[in-house]
Amino acid sequence: MAPKKVTIIGSGNWGSAIARIVGSTTKAYPDLFDPEVRMWVFEEIVNGEKLSEVINTRHENIKYLPGKILPTNVVAVTDLVESCAGSNILVFVVPHQFVKGICEKLIGKIPSDSQAISLIKGVSTQKKGGLKLISEEIRDILKIEVSVLMGANLAPEVANDNFCEATIGTSGFFNGPLLKKLFHTENFRINVVEDAHTVELCGALKNIVACAAGFTDGLGYGDNTKAAVIRLGLMETTKFVEHYYPGSNLQTFFESCGIADLITTCYGGRNRKVCEAFVKTGKPMDVIEKELLNGQSAQGPLTAEEVYLMTQKTGVDSKFPLFTAVHKICKGEMKPAELIDCLRNHPEHL
Amino acid sequence: MAPKKVTIIGSGNWGSAIARIVGSTTKAYPDLFDPEVRMWVFEEIVNGEKLSEVINTRHENIKYLPGKILPTNVVAVTDLVESCAGSNILVFVVPHQFVKGICEKLIGKIPSDSQAISLIKGVSTQKKGGLKLISEEIRDILKIEVSVLMGANLAPEVANDNFCEATIGTSGFFNGPLLKKLFHTENFRINVVEDAHTVELCGALKNIVACAAGFTDGLGYGDNTKAAVIRLGLMETTKFVEHYYPGSNLQTFFESCGIADLITTCYGGRNRKVCEAFVKTGKPMDVIEKELLNGQSAQGPLTAEEVYLMTQKTGVDSKFPLFTAVHKICKGEMKPAELIDCLRNHPEHL
Repeated sequence: MAPKKVTIIGSGNWGSAIARIVGSTTKAYPDLFDPEVRMWVFEEIVNGEKLSEVINTRHENIKYLPGKILPTNVVAVTDLVESCAGSNILVFVVPHQFVKGICEKLIGKIPSDSQAISLIKGVSTQKKGGLKLISEEIRDILKIEVSVLMGANLAPEVANDNFCEATIGTSGFFNGPLLKKLFHTENFRINVVEDAHTVELCGALKNIVACAAGFTDGLGYGDNTKAAVIRLGLMETTKFVEHYYPGSNLQTFFESCGIADLITTCYGGRNRKVCEAFVKTGKPMDVIEKELLNGQSAQGPLTAEEVYLMTQKTGVDSKFPLFTAVHKICKGEMKPAELIDCLRNHPEHL
Repeated sequence: MAPKKVTIIGSGNWGSAIARIVGSTTKAYPDLFDPEVRMWVFEEIVNGEKLSEVINTRHENIKYLPGKILPTNVVAVTDLVESCAGSNILVFVVPHQFVKGICEKLIGKIPSDSQAISLIKGVSTQKKGGLKLISEEIRDILKIEVSVLMGANLAPEVANDNFCEATIGTSGFFNGPLLKKLFHTENFRINVVEDAHTVELCGALKNIVACAAGFTDGLGYGDNTKAAVIRLGLMETTKFVEHYYPGSNLQTFFESCGIADLITTCYGGRNRKVCEAFVKTGKPMDVIEKELLNGQSAQGPLTAEEVYLMTQKTGVDSKFPLFTAVHKICKGEMKPAELIDCLRNHPEHL
């Protein structure tokens, strides 16, 4: 088997942090991987210099990961198709709204036996009333195998080589050992599970739970209530996966992508923060997002809307009282203080 | 069936908070429960008054739950045997070191078909090298059926009627419905599982995990590392239960007694706090405990020692690197900074 060529599609904060890992592992296993890792960089001028040139000469992403050196075998390429030509493994790590456009540009331009791995948390918002996973979007357009990598992985901490864990979810286990080699390091510990949908849905749905946690923080509830809310959110996550993507393994929720990422997101995390502020200030969600997130949107309210459209259409929204309440509160259709009333008769307590 | 007589053995902070609940449910179901709930009170003089008399006249535990009114059907009784005479349900909610003495006094003094429910978190420390559950201790001495109630339940928040959840673990499901009626209220939501050992072990072992979380806080690690530590602690908890009490149900760890209580304990909680201070100050554990806990002991280091003696004796300590490291760090046999090295080759990552 020829060594696999790897391309990282994306060069933001998370993409650059992961490039440090992938650059080192590909060098460590030259029989498995081609040591040159191409990284697609959307060209920008930073302080009068081209970002790609800075990366290729000084090996630092001065805009999105300043102060951290990238391995010299990570090469910035500004042309998307060129960056992926002949690549066997495509690592997707771009904002979710760019996935469709990128994939469409790559049709017919990559080996037919390439595989992708998505590090993108969130869901596609292109299909109203039916949540679409990022991995499904990539697979539908490029007709290739798609795995996912999720976990409690704040990019700055990963870039600092702090000890952490992540979960790779594959749809066929044959990809697992190779992908583990590509990402597993001394400080970035990978478990592989053959349960890609669950892994990816954990990464998306946790943001709804974090909104609920933020509401309880904003309302001034204590630790008991917050713990109950997080737990009920996790139970709805398991039920959602079971309902729409049957065949998941309960054990997967114990992986880093599950409880670990959920905890981190519900105690730190921007969704929690904006929802706490939403309650405390009484301002509409879009105003809060503008004020706190530099005009970006929080994933939680968007995901809650997609989930609500889906559960309502299929007549099961009453089985997901927390998800439903988060959506209605974000839209101003329900008062935050009513959240707990919605949980009092939770199906979990029957 | 005659209505069941209920006795609450204990009248501290948690006992008094639970008396508010049990007082109201026994009144609500007169066909199931005798409305007089006796509460055993260890007599003390508070501000020149007998505590039991204050409870029976002003219906307030002015020492351990000041400011909260107890239902008038909760009657303080200072004689232990008298408080339990003819009782069908004994609710144990005393510090764990008093359980043995109390049970020995009750031998032959309670109906032979009584049942007990323990709300006591922790393990018995009387049997060196083999952890003994509180429920086992009660069962061994009194030869009665023992259930447990555990969950993310800080007593002051329960006393404030904040929404929260708890888990009842029974060893035979026949007790479940009755016990649920005794504790389930609008704001204290009970799930019953037929998996008492798991429920009780979650309540004990979480304190070891909280110590590890405290060490990572003290060492200044970020959210990723803390989440990984908590997750690995949970995995060791599941393995420990599986190894020593086979037949547990993975689903039980998703109940309030499992992840919810674990999260609360690892983010708030005294074990986390003393272990953070242990790292930051460099003082021995007993000194820290004296300074921060008014001379009381934290449960985590004690439980870690019992668990270590048990895993070492049975030759499986290497399967529990986090539990083992917490014990050795508490004893000063290992530096806190070595914790992460112990986790890097965790069996979970193989």
